[in-house]
Amino acid sequence: MKYDVIVIGSGPGGYVAAIRASQLGKKVAVVEKAEIGGICLNWGCIPTKALLKSAAVYTYMKHAENYGITVEGTVKPDMEAVVKRSRGVAETMSKGVQYLLNKYKVDVIAGFGSLTADKKVKVVDAQGVETEYEAERIVLATGSRVRQLPSLPIDGKKIIGYRQALVLDKLPENMVVVGSGAIGSEFAFFFASMGVNVTLIEFLPNILPVEDEDVSKQIERCFRKLKMTVMTEASVTNVDTTGEKCICTVSTKKGEKTIEADIVLSAVGVQTNLDNLGLETLGIKNERGKIEVNEWYETNVPGIYAIGDIVHGPALAHKASHEALICVEKFCGGNPKPLNYNNIPGCTYITPEVASVGLSEAKAVAAGYEVKVGKFPFTASGKATASGNKDGFIKVVFNAADGKWLGAHLVGDNVTEMVATAVLARELGATGREIIENIFPHPTMSEAIMEAAAAAYGEVVHL
Amino acid sequence: MKYDVIVIGSGPGGYVAAIRASQLGKKVAVVEKAEIGGICLNWGCIPTKALLKSAAVYTYMKHAENYGITVEGTVKPDMEAVVKRSRGVAETMSKGVQYLLNKYKVDVIAGFGSLTADKKVKVVDAQGVETEYEAERIVLATGSRVRQLPSLPIDGKKIIGYRQALVLDKLPENMVVVGSGAIGSEFAFFFASMGVNVTLIEFLPNILPVEDEDVSKQIERCFRKLKMTVMTEASVTNVDTTGEKCICTVSTKKGEKTIEADIVLSAVGVQTNLDNLGLETLGIKNERGKIEVNEWYETNVPGIYAIGDIVHGPALAHKASHEALICVEKFCGGNPKPLNYNNIPGCTYITPEVASVGLSEAKAVAAGYEVKVGKFPFTASGKATASGNKDGFIKVVFNAADGKWLGAHLVGDNVTEMVATAVLARELGATGREIIENIFPHPTMSEAIMEAAAAAYGEVVHL
Repeated sequence: MKYDVIVIGSGPGGYVAAIRASQLGKKVAVVEKAEIGGICLNWGCIPTKALLKSAAVYTYMKHAENYGITVEGTVKPDMEAVVKRSRGVAETMSKGVQYLLNKYKVDVIAGFGSLTADKKVKVVDAQGVETEYEAERIVLATGSRVRQLPSLPIDGKKIIGYRQALVLDKLPENMVVVGSGAIGSEFAFFFASMGVNVTLIEFLPNILPVEDEDVSKQIERCFRKLKMTVMTEASVTNVDTTGEKCICTVSTKKGEKTIEADIVLSAVGVQTNLDNLGLETLGIKNERGKIEVNEWYETNVPGIYAIGDIVHGPALAHKASHEALICVEKFCGGNPKPLNYNNIPGCTYITPEVASVGLSEAKAVAAGYEVKVGKFPFTASGKATASGNKDGFIKVVFNAADGKWLGAHLVGDNVTEMVATAVLARELGATGREIIENIFPHPTMSEAIMEAAAAAYGEVVHL
Repeated sequence: MKYDVIVIGSGPGGYVAAIRASQLGKKVAVVEKAEIGGICLNWGCIPTKALLKSAAVYTYMKHAENYGITVEGTVKPDMEAVVKRSRGVAETMSKGVQYLLNKYKVDVIAGFGSLTADKKVKVVDAQGVETEYEAERIVLATGSRVRQLPSLPIDGKKIIGYRQALVLDKLPENMVVVGSGAIGSEFAFFFASMGVNVTLIEFLPNILPVEDEDVSKQIERCFRKLKMTVMTEASVTNVDTTGEKCICTVSTKKGEKTIEADIVLSAVGVQTNLDNLGLETLGIKNERGKIEVNEWYETNVPGIYAIGDIVHGPALAHKASHEALICVEKFCGGNPKPLNYNNIPGCTYITPEVASVGLSEAKAVAAGYEVKVGKFPFTASGKATASGNKDGFIKVVFNAADGKWLGAHLVGDNVTEMVATAVLARELGATGREIIENIFPHPTMSEAIMEAAAAAYGEVVHL
């Protein structure tokens, strides 16, 4: 079978590339070795958001009387039902992508895809049957998987990764979470909300280490309020799983400590899926797990493209989808705009939510900018007060020289829905003055964007 | 006592004007006849949001098992506690404004303020004592109050307005709400969520009549799911309150109907507070309840300004606050940008939320634009699916000729926090193409803005 385009991997990079190429008139196939939709839909972004919603509802119920709602009786999470709901959500979304692939007449080829020496795609299916497919263009979108540390070998029972954490239908009493990036922090928050004694261990000085330090500090306070134990500048050097419990040896500034837990969740990052892809056969350049591409995602081998986690930049679904559109539209003769890698937002869906884009204050200063910084706490927000969630703030960093928006750092209810305002404003080149002059609706928490900008300019009314 | 600036009214127009003028070096007083913060903080935006949050929490609890949370026992709203919480929120915010006025050394003068023939401000306090104050500039920010219809005379018991509705600490069995603008719809939704049998009566063909028709239709469906009775093209011609129940005579297209209710809530709009302000004494021009002002909010009498509900434009808090800043900054020698009255967002905080800015599709067409319209339903959104609230959509209207964004119409969870993205994009002159090219974070509902724009351009991937 000969295609115009074959995409290897059906995650948010791959399926978007496949659908868009088909919309633009190409004959397209997508190769997938596991579930349609990839990690994001099946084992990442989407099912975690479902779990976190259950945690949010449970949290509201625990504090119902704060809202004037009376519960006579008991409220408790039914983990089997919580997990079942999350799996159902993932399945719904995966079916949705299958529907779209079908609608746009994209062939789905089940199996493990790799490149051959003559630039074909070899697919090995579950039965081990090999088939070769030809294509004018091949897009690699194979994504990533959990990263394993030698000191934390995932056995799927006592030492687990995100996959097992998503289907843990019985709550442990104690859990150690290693790594406090978005994945680690979301699971630590989820299990702590459900009543598990969680210890979160981070190697770097701050949890959520890619965020502005003010964000990290705020979330650390919120986590401690949840009775989570947070250890920074600490690392797990060994886990003894031979007994009933996991005995974790933790190296800290103050020496070695021992922590007992029922389960250890390793959330120390992801590693890209480049093994056995056939990169070497064709001499496709790659370094430290990332394939080299130009701004249109073409590798050094003409006709072979790569997008998503396996190329430079953060391993985020929206980045992969966006690269997919740019890659496909370019090779279909369109005129897309290259992606601005300085303007990719990141979100963490704990409570309060975290969202950010651009430079932290420290990084902006380190980059040599003279900055105007403004911060507006949600304690001063009418909407936050009315909704009963006043934790958090919006912090903005502008370039003092020209007013351009260097960074936005948001912590609070629903800020993951607000950060797009900052991303778009930055994309359009808005200045702090233009943010102040814009009319935000009242009463919303988005008003705090304007208040923070006004604070940066020394004009804030509500502080 | 002589001031640089006296502001009459301490609502979101007045207190913002007072604080900003003080920040800019003026000696300022604000005159208030009732609570600091005006209607918005005390009897409007803020306490309603508190009630609606209680309704949201109660709704989650009623559907807890959808999220995997088990309730053994009963869940019910305690209206006294719900109202007490709402009043507490209002009081907190009012105290916050008092704190700010104090911090910025704005004098607060309690009493009813009006203009004298020699351009002074006369204040009559609660004891009837009159005092006159001089000011170089006077800003009128007296806002509005509930509008009364002859057929719906508010008695505060059986026929009530928003003030009484905010403190109804016992739920009626049946309620008729007359008027389905933001205020009427929010109360109808709140009481229906709490279990009251609500009939919502709207004179015009659609509820939420200022919104795009698709929005109105969606909300009508959601209201019916809540078991609310929705009557459009209907009006209450008489209410007989002599018996135990209110007997409402309703004129409809199909003739006259009779509806019994315990309480009738009149929410047929607001009327401005211009009575006894002394406008005539000074010959300040006003027409149909609105004072005439130039783009810097100066009336025809030099040194006398007016902002907020009492001037042209919608009666919205953020509009009043924004006018306050422009008015004050201008007369303090600044260089503010005049307000664009075509870019003022409006929000209704029901579930699903409603937010919009700019022209509806029908109004854009009527204005002669050739339009590109896109609509993305939240049923296709991963975040909406994970959060369990898939009702709603984002609809965008672009000018086909130049791609400029004519209108945005949002229905769904948290859309009141998303509409700022559209407002700012419109302010900055963004085109549909620029919205499509912007990178929205995944998984969020804000992505639907990009998807809707892509739909308008025939490029949507997820539909």
